[in-house]
Amino acid sequence: MRIARTPDDLRLQLAALPRPRVLVPTMGALHDGHLALVHRARKAAGPDGTVAVSIFVNPIQFDRPGDLAAYPKPLEDDLAKCQAAGVDLVFAPEAGAMYFPDRSVTVTESLLSKHLCGATRPGHFDGVCTVVLKLFNLFQADAAVFGEKDVQQLAILRRMVRDLDVPVEIIGHPTVREPDGLAMSSRNVRLTPEHRADAPRIRRALEGARSLLQFGERSAAPFLAAARKHLEDSPFLRIDYLELVDAETLQPVGPIKRPAVLATAVFYGDVRLIDHVTLLP
Amino acid sequence: MRIARTPDDLRLQLAALPRPRVLVPTMGALHDGHLALVHRARKAAGPDGTVAVSIFVNPIQFDRPGDLAAYPKPLEDDLAKCQAAGVDLVFAPEAGAMYFPDRSVTVTESLLSKHLCGATRPGHFDGVCTVVLKLFNLFQADAAVFGEKDVQQLAILRRMVRDLDVPVEIIGHPTVREPDGLAMSSRNVRLTPEHRADAPRIRRALEGARSLLQFGERSAAPFLAAARKHLEDSPFLRIDYLELVDAETLQPVGPIKRPAVLATAVFYGDVRLIDHVTLLP
Repeated sequence: MRIARTPDDLRLQLAALPRPRVLVPTMGALHDGHLALVHRARKAAGPDGTVAVSIFVNPIQFDRPGDLAAYPKPLEDDLAKCQAAGVDLVFAPEAGAMYFPDRSVTVTESLLSKHLCGATRPGHFDGVCTVVLKLFNLFQADAAVFGEKDVQQLAILRRMVRDLDVPVEIIGHPTVREPDGLAMSSRNVRLTPEHRADAPRIRRALEGARSLLQFGERSAAPFLAAARKHLEDSPFLRIDYLELVDAETLQPVGPIKRPAVLATAVFYGDVRLIDHVTLLP
Repeated sequence: MRIARTPDDLRLQLAALPRPRVLVPTMGALHDGHLALVHRARKAAGPDGTVAVSIFVNPIQFDRPGDLAAYPKPLEDDLAKCQAAGVDLVFAPEAGAMYFPDRSVTVTESLLSKHLCGATRPGHFDGVCTVVLKLFNLFQADAAVFGEKDVQQLAILRRMVRDLDVPVEIIGHPTVREPDGLAMSSRNVRLTPEHRADAPRIRRALEGARSLLQFGERSAAPFLAAARKHLEDSPFLRIDYLELVDAETLQPVGPIKRPAVLATAVFYGDVRLIDHVTLLP
């Protein structure tokens, strides 16, 4: 497995690797969810293509300095997991290798980023779009795999690719969960044991609300109320947002007439977790 | 010469054309300045490479609807000039083929676009960056040629390529002038005969100011005053801006210690013309 630490080194090493080239952009602290993305990338690349993983804790997408500082960075473990998963190339740059001190060009998204995480994390998705476009350009990737867990990120990146004619295929992969239903996240390891035991409630709250569909419910309020009730029954968590939005535009919906997403972000202490369910009318 | 009118058609036709692929992005109404860029592109592409020209009056970079409506669009003439100049492929899309009605992703530049044209044309350079990145992505270009006449545009595009790791080489080409010194521009044909006769004053004002360098002058005010005096002697023109900025950062400078740019935009009626000179300390 090759490892590149700078953009120049990356370009050199890529020249020796066959196409198609499929990228899995990550912030490291790899878990089984990431490895599922790697396997999906291998399927897309084929046995003879190249699967590449980027490991970069992108400073410009963090709105809270504490969150950035606390983000786990177990690089040696990550490299071992990539090697075991059959990754061909890992790109793990320092922040200084990715951004000039006087950088002034940003990719901005002005519609899909207005709600959900975008509303409470100002600048977050501009940071995501900017770094992902940089990675696409550096890798000259043919395709890239992202987790559906980050539903808003995935929708925004698809929009970026559409609006900027980026020649990269975006592949989404279903959320991978712990046995108790908690969505896998690099932030889960920062939960206290009590909070970890409570956290599967997030999924149950969303699934429970979704079950109202079976009773013919289509207006937004009952779904939101049911999920909120179950979340607020927790003695620990604080709701950052709970919203019902159109699955494509991510704008709030009234009656559910097209695929919609019931999405939430909650805090356990200073650990922020997200999850969502899709509602099909 | 091939002609493509939609992005899909462009991709198909490009597949048959050899690399390197050098792009000259234009808004059409081609004059000898553009044709000099085409010849520069041929030099970069070599006899066996591909020289492509895009002709697209990009609506999102116009801040004045009247300017957009009045912009000349002589497509048949443009195609004939491209053919005669040895262009291999022209891409001339309709606006509807380039932008979705609900487009929401933009490339923004926040530093170099603050002065000069950026100050009086809000959103202009975001529109330029966005369309140029789209064209780079659609063409998968190896290099692109731009006129140095649009000095701010060229600096901003170089910055975009740097900050987003765009794998396209940016080639600048010196301003091409009419025999009387007026910088060539597609807007020149819209000048009245009186205005056209007066317009070489722009270049003379800038050159005259630059001559102060020979007398050891290095502070900004005398350069600005000399140029302003000569411009304001015109009975016709109105100054949009006149600024002395650093050649790289495009921020206003006091004493000239590094390469600087003395740049102006003026209106003759509703026709806006730009020009600049470089001052080397």
